[in-house]
Amino acid sequence: MDTPDRTDRREADPRVADLGFARVDVDRAARTGDPEVVYGAGKTPDQVVTILRTLHERHPDRAVLATRVSEEALVAVAGALPDAEIDPVARAVTLGPLPTGRGTVAVVAAGTSDAPVAAEAALTIRVHGAGVDRVDDVGVAGLHRLLAVQERLAAADCLVVVAGMEGALPSVVGGLTGVPLVAVPTSVGYGASLGGIAALLGMLNSCAPGITVVNIDNGYGAGVHAARVARNAAPRSGEPG
Amino acid sequence: MDTPDRTDRREADPRVADLGFARVDVDRAARTGDPEVVYGAGKTPDQVVTILRTLHERHPDRAVLATRVSEEALVAVAGALPDAEIDPVARAVTLGPLPTGRGTVAVVAAGTSDAPVAAEAALTIRVHGAGVDRVDDVGVAGLHRLLAVQERLAAADCLVVVAGMEGALPSVVGGLTGVPLVAVPTSVGYGASLGGIAALLGMLNSCAPGITVVNIDNGYGAGVHAARVARNAAPRSGEPG
Amino acid sequence: MDTPDRTDRREADPRVADLGFARVDVDRAARTGDPEVVYGAGKTPDQVVTILRTLHERHPDRAVLATRVSEEALVAVAGALPDAEIDPVARAVTLGPLPTGRGTVAVVAAGTSDAPVAAEAALTIRVHGAGVDRVDDVGVAGLHRLLAVQERLAAADCLVVVAGMEGALPSVVGGLTGVPLVAVPTSVGYGASLGGIAALLGMLNSCAPGITVVNIDNGYGAGVHAARVARNAAPRSGEPG
Amino acid sequence: MDTPDRTDRREADPRVADLGFARVDVDRAARTGDPEVVYGAGKTPDQVVTILRTLHERHPDRAVLATRVSEEALVAVAGALPDAEIDPVARAVTLGPLPTGRGTVAVVAAGTSDAPVAAEAALTIRVHGAGVDRVDDVGVAGLHRLLAVQERLAAADCLVVVAGMEGALPSVVGGLTGVPLVAVPTSVGYGASLGGIAALLGMLNSCAPGITVVNIDNGYGAGVHAARVARNAAPRSGEPG
Amino acid sequence: MDTPDRTDRREADPRVADLGFARVDVDRAARTGDPEVVYGAGKTPDQVVTILRTLHERHPDRAVLATRVSEEALVAVAGALPDAEIDPVARAVTLGPLPTGRGTVAVVAAGTSDAPVAAEAALTIRVHGAGVDRVDDVGVAGLHRLLAVQERLAAADCLVVVAGMEGALPSVVGGLTGVPLVAVPTSVGYGASLGGIAALLGMLNSCAPGITVVNIDNGYGAGVHAARVARNAAPRSGEPG
Amino acid sequence: MDTPDRTDRREADPRVADLGFARVDVDRAARTGDPEVVYGAGKTPDQVVTILRTLHERHPDRAVLATRVSEEALVAVAGALPDAEIDPVARAVTLGPLPTGRGTVAVVAAGTSDAPVAAEAALTIRVHGAGVDRVDDVGVAGLHRLLAVQERLAAADCLVVVAGMEGALPSVVGGLTGVPLVAVPTSVGYGASLGGIAALLGMLNSCAPGITVVNIDNGYGAGVHAARVARNAAPRSGEPG
Amino acid sequence: MDTPDRTDRREADPRVADLGFARVDVDRAARTGDPEVVYGAGKTPDQVVTILRTLHERHPDRAVLATRVSEEALVAVAGALPDAEIDPVARAVTLGPLPTGRGTVAVVAAGTSDAPVAAEAALTIRVHGAGVDRVDDVGVAGLHRLLAVQERLAAADCLVVVAGMEGALPSVVGGLTGVPLVAVPTSVGYGASLGGIAALLGMLNSCAPGITVVNIDNGYGAGVHAARVARNAAPRSGEPG
Amino acid sequence: MDTPDRTDRREADPRVADLGFARVDVDRAARTGDPEVVYGAGKTPDQVVTILRTLHERHPDRAVLATRVSEEALVAVAGALPDAEIDPVARAVTLGPLPTGRGTVAVVAAGTSDAPVAAEAALTIRVHGAGVDRVDDVGVAGLHRLLAVQERLAAADCLVVVAGMEGALPSVVGGLTGVPLVAVPTSVGYGASLGGIAALLGMLNSCAPGITVVNIDNGYGAGVHAARVARNAAPRSGEPG
Repeated sequence: MDTPDRTDRREADPRVADLGFARVDVDRAARTGDPEVVYGAGKTPDQVVTILRTLHERHPDRAVLATRVSEEALVAVAGALPDAEIDPVARAVTLGPLPTGRGTVAVVAAGTSDAPVAAEAALTIRVHGAGVDRVDDVGVAGLHRLLAVQERLAAADCLVVVAGMEGALPSVVGGLTGVPLVAVPTSVGYGASLGGIAALLGMLNSCAPGITVVNIDNGYGAGVHAARVARNAAPRSGEPG
Repeated sequence: MDTPDRTDRREADPRVADLGFARVDVDRAARTGDPEVVYGAGKTPDQVVTILRTLHERHPDRAVLATRVSEEALVAVAGALPDAEIDPVARAVTLGPLPTGRGTVAVVAAGTSDAPVAAEAALTIRVHGAGVDRVDDVGVAGLHRLLAVQERLAAADCLVVVAGMEGALPSVVGGLTGVPLVAVPTSVGYGASLGGIAALLGMLNSCAPGITVVNIDNGYGAGVHAARVARNAAPRSGEPG
Repeated sequence: MDTPDRTDRREADPRVADLGFARVDVDRAARTGDPEVVYGAGKTPDQVVTILRTLHERHPDRAVLATRVSEEALVAVAGALPDAEIDPVARAVTLGPLPTGRGTVAVVAAGTSDAPVAAEAALTIRVHGAGVDRVDDVGVAGLHRLLAVQERLAAADCLVVVAGMEGALPSVVGGLTGVPLVAVPTSVGYGASLGGIAALLGMLNSCAPGITVVNIDNGYGAGVHAARVARNAAPRSGEPG
Repeated sequence: MDTPDRTDRREADPRVADLGFARVDVDRAARTGDPEVVYGAGKTPDQVVTILRTLHERHPDRAVLATRVSEEALVAVAGALPDAEIDPVARAVTLGPLPTGRGTVAVVAAGTSDAPVAAEAALTIRVHGAGVDRVDDVGVAGLHRLLAVQERLAAADCLVVVAGMEGALPSVVGGLTGVPLVAVPTSVGYGASLGGIAALLGMLNSCAPGITVVNIDNGYGAGVHAARVARNAAPRSGEPG
Repeated sequence: MDTPDRTDRREADPRVADLGFARVDVDRAARTGDPEVVYGAGKTPDQVVTILRTLHERHPDRAVLATRVSEEALVAVAGALPDAEIDPVARAVTLGPLPTGRGTVAVVAAGTSDAPVAAEAALTIRVHGAGVDRVDDVGVAGLHRLLAVQERLAAADCLVVVAGMEGALPSVVGGLTGVPLVAVPTSVGYGASLGGIAALLGMLNSCAPGITVVNIDNGYGAGVHAARVARNAAPRSGEPG
Repeated sequence: MDTPDRTDRREADPRVADLGFARVDVDRAARTGDPEVVYGAGKTPDQVVTILRTLHERHPDRAVLATRVSEEALVAVAGALPDAEIDPVARAVTLGPLPTGRGTVAVVAAGTSDAPVAAEAALTIRVHGAGVDRVDDVGVAGLHRLLAVQERLAAADCLVVVAGMEGALPSVVGGLTGVPLVAVPTSVGYGASLGGIAALLGMLNSCAPGITVVNIDNGYGAGVHAARVARNAAPRSGEPG
Repeated sequence: MDTPDRTDRREADPRVADLGFARVDVDRAARTGDPEVVYGAGKTPDQVVTILRTLHERHPDRAVLATRVSEEALVAVAGALPDAEIDPVARAVTLGPLPTGRGTVAVVAAGTSDAPVAAEAALTIRVHGAGVDRVDDVGVAGLHRLLAVQERLAAADCLVVVAGMEGALPSVVGGLTGVPLVAVPTSVGYGASLGGIAALLGMLNSCAPGITVVNIDNGYGAGVHAARVARNAAPRSGEPG
Repeated sequence: MDTPDRTDRREADPRVADLGFARVDVDRAARTGDPEVVYGAGKTPDQVVTILRTLHERHPDRAVLATRVSEEALVAVAGALPDAEIDPVARAVTLGPLPTGRGTVAVVAAGTSDAPVAAEAALTIRVHGAGVDRVDDVGVAGLHRLLAVQERLAAADCLVVVAGMEGALPSVVGGLTGVPLVAVPTSVGYGASLGGIAALLGMLNSCAPGITVVNIDNGYGAGVHAARVARNAAPRSGEPG
């Protein structure tokens, strides 16, 4: 006799919501202290809406986050979930109340084109429980802008530095302060930028010590790390919030 | 005088069906024990239908398989070949009776996005004469799900482990059992995942011994190998089918 | 007060032998059915001797294996462990009785330069409990040698095919039989062979279905997989042993 | 005063036809013995028609060739130049009488998907003055087809061997004969085939001596080399034409 | 007249100690809160001794660190600077009193071969003012060891996870806790490990959120980041020191 | 209480024009002597028009330049800014009077397909204050065209040499003269041209001394460098303008 | 009972000389018309001597060739085989009478550093039965030398063009003549020459049609192809020999 | 009869000195205005001495330069050519009087490890007829040193900026001035610095306009370009020499 696929043997697990097309881990908050997050790439608008609604129902007192949401799915969310907050630059959505921010992460971006990644990082940080200070358009070819914000950088509990092209900004920022720093290479550039590989390699080889790096365009990953650092940091003098 | 192309010299070969646009090897079963398979990529819907029909006529008692079939060709097959079974997740088609499965292959997938590759592997295994046990959504960042299925993995005759991103799942599974294991990297990921190269390299460098690897997204190849292993395996206690 | 390193907190674990410079997993056999193995690269001659002796004392009834042993360490083992069997081509050592082989793996090598990797695979297979049939010097540029051994290949329970340069041998062998096949690329070659990358890519892209691949020069990994497949295989007519 | 661009200084050169959008070298035949050729990629349908017509007017007694012609441009050529011969598989056009072929090139292709590149090579050879013998669907995973044509291969003055995926076919063919051989990797494949790089590396590292290689999908380049070799070859016994 | 090199124009800068062969930044502590560090690679034994002595004289109350010190230079330091503490595994030296550690970093290493990088990270952390908890030999192919230390991991203020080969350990650890995590790929491996690139890519593509990565073998960089995070962290219940 | 994003803290900086979606540096001319430039890639037609207008208002006496402008944005500029000069080949726009050219840059292009990059370089040079001499269609496979213009090359103050495919032209030109030379690889080619990487590597490895290179397709960058060199050059005998 | 390795089953094959450490194909001449060749890399001096002697005994009337012979093995050959001819630049040896050359191959080298590869090609051509015309030191940065030998190039039956660095020489030579051309990239260069990859890519992307390429430093492979072409070529007016 | 190698046909060329092992171009000065240069890599001490002496005899009134000279050859030169000037940091030699420098090139180096490449650039510039201003140890992680020399940078006629690791220094320098700038990546770094590829990619993707790049560690090439620019520059106020 033919052996059937035995996927029906899937056990009931209270830590998992089985939506048919996906099994959603609803226990992550207990394990890591982080909120629930939906990775929207490759999901249909309906799937994004359904997962957001399910997670929100299980965690009504804390915002859930969806990242990498397509234009089409953003529209679907706006129609189906009127309480959702949509961030069109970050291509991200939150549903439910944001937590009170503890500590501050300064999110620094080199150029206008890096804005979507910086916005994804900033929203991720907010949802993960820390405050944000945005510093934009401070590329290394115009040092005066960067030097003008040196104090804001030094006052943060963690830095997220976003840059494409040669990815030099984290090295320069890392030489100015001793604040923990996460560098995010972006795919901004052309030719031998190799879709962000040049910036990634530059950041991994930074001459400034203590710089850590995440994947290309991964504002979300940088935001999670930075929020964990900032919300655990001891209060500093002059700290907002 | 001009020398014409001499392709008309092609000899008649009983092991080959000449369809004009392709010469189909109809002798593979005798040589390898495997069924006939159509690689659908780059073929028109009409070509897929014609090859499937021809192979089925020559092998009416055993299912033929078509993989990487386009959406358009799936529709054409459904219209032209009402007996065909269509697997929309795997983007694959079978025509003719599936063989009785001997032995069992557990097909393990890390995430929802790996489902198409896992489905292609599972269907390939069925068509090649072995049984399948599907285990889905057991990524390494949620070990509890994986540990819960440890016995099912150990009971299989062969494992196919499908994962994208960093491709770590085969290493963890390989440390839990001594069952022969084939790892399949998928192109799921972005940035420095390099279209699956990161997962491929991870699997090739696994610290767990005895892991073998196939090309990125090649569920078919993994399935052929695993089915051959499983159907040749001696019966085990508790073996289904 | 200064916080000391707390590595002294390491718990006593009966599954681990703590040798100071390394914690050796002595429980692997129970978990996977495989023997204990020492990876000799980067270890001093004394360390290789000590680990081999320790593992042999815990498993006196089953051979332990050391691979990638330096010339210097082979000499040290010969002096310190007179019962050890040394394989100078494979640069490997066994200590303790080899198991009775179940099933057969044919180990096929393309050229003379591939011999060390083929020898490592063959010895690994023996130590992991299967029999071996060696087939050497059957490169694709001399098909007559390969066709002459076609029956031996078809009679095996698993094939390990070792080749450097363009790595074409597995494709040709894979077209001749339906036996499960593991391909091992070697670093034999120069220039654009890229230290074995060319052969690795060739094997991953083989047009013959069901070929799986291990890392460059990884005869050990191929041997573990193949031995597991062969020793689990149902007896075949004409099977030796 | 402003310095104007001095492109107007372009001198009149009888070896060049200046069409405004391109300067066409009409002197190549005298220098190399080869016909005039238009590389159609990136050119508009009108440009392809105009260049073909101009070259044909200057060389009415010998076919000119256009390669890499888009579908759209093929239609435009058919409408505007009724004497043109269109090869839809090769995506190429000839205009003017083909020369009498001297010598023979066997064009060998591994699979159906390699047909466009093989067709481009075959037509190029014809236009460059040699005869062609096409041998299709002789992949290395089905050696019997290849061995059946061994004599045709040995009778040629030059071989063009076209293959994608692992690119193993030239090695096997090169082991069967001593005829000069040009290998053409194609971009057929997926995943770690890297758009033909795997096949290219395989061919460059072939264990069969005397194999030379051209760029990925470059049937034209292989055809030019092979035609030059064949048309210069001394007549052989049994040579057609 | 010949223009001489004008390097003599170098201005006197109180933040820099000019040793002839190098200008040493002695002001970094004030700017970043970190100690002075000597990168020993490419420096002669004499240069290492001289720079260590100079920095220690300017900062007698705080340890200075030298990393990547050659065997030869370690011997020279031991002879010339009897108060120096030498870590032969980390190939590093400290001179001067270590600061009291604030907060704790758990340094987790996958295998014995990763020990030098883990040791460099651990010593760097101590010198930069945080405490260390070492966890060794917890590879992903032996999950039981890792699960046994889960509480120690959760109790840390930051994690440094060191692994070579496929680099899967950070993903598994990152799924077990929400502690900020820095992953360090090592060059342990062979063949397609590409000198650590495989592990680096694996870590950058981790499916566990919030993992950041440093360059291959860069225990120092990971240690700097982790120490900054840990020493700024608010005290936790059960915190040592 | 929740910590809001503090981007509102952005200080007023007279060197920057804040347009909402971008902060435009309007001080670059004073710092570098170069004009203002808009990088059009990724910007909407409206954004391109607005930035061009703003920069022109602040610098009415000197042309501003926009590069990499989409077809759509070129149309918008033509409608909204009737005084703008549009270069459709270069996909670039200028607004305002071009400066008087000092010195001359010869812009040499290998093939018709390199024309857009050469045009971008030429326009950039004009806007940055130097004169241009265009030399087109002088590939290395037709040396007679190149040798015919040898004197024009030697008369220039700087050379910009644009080539795709193997990128050999700068080596040949660099052997003919001692004029400072900037090489620009283009993405023209296919297969192993790797999107211009082959040409880039060729130029970096040129056997002719003194050749410098810019990123793939970066006519703008080459033009800026060359214009700075030419406009600073001392007048030469026979120099135009 | 234990299954022994069955390598003793190796059949006696008259086409193979079994030397214990290697099975030497002594039938290649019959199959391809080429002489016997020993690839010396990785072989001990004794092995090289033994294989040369064996092959010479079987083929006393035709030279055998050994390539890539180490300094040490060259000395051993000189001592043991007084009739051997040693080419120290090519690091190659011949034993037995060279055949009368039919046709001529011009071997063109760009620089002094390319001499070993050019010498290997030249000797290979001689041993494979064609004549050689050496043309050295004709790099593209000094066109006058190249133009001075244009007639010698046009008079050859085949060209082998050897170049490192950017590998531009084949493009320039290929534009001057219509003779079949094989390009050999060498590993001469540094930095981004990537051990010859830059030259290899340059040659594969040549803008001159009909250029074929062999692996980096593979003078032997180029020589085999070129000799086959030249010795088959019809006699030309003014042909030497 | 056997066809001998016809290299004896080499014609006498007054522009070339034939030394047996190399043909030295002694006409470069007339063609390019540059001095004669010997590339010492791969040459024996005797060869370096002989070429230097020959070139000096033909050009007694102008210094000849040898770069990449081995330690052993430097000693041989010191013994054989007492008038030679040896630069041990640059591993270079000059013989004959240096020309009077016209214009100034500022050579800027990021770190101590970049000194050999900077020294090679500086000496090359001097030999090629321009003056040099050295600026060392101005890495981007310590901006204060760089800002302190801003005026010296702006006063130069050309800049050579040398940096390893992430290669960020040219971007920062390029943002401070409008002086023509050549960036030199060095192989300083480890891990994912890939022997200087990371720095090379960073420089090619610089966000500062007008930066051109040379090959890794190619101080010589940068020096040639920069000297040509500087010596052609119109005199500036305050210019030395």
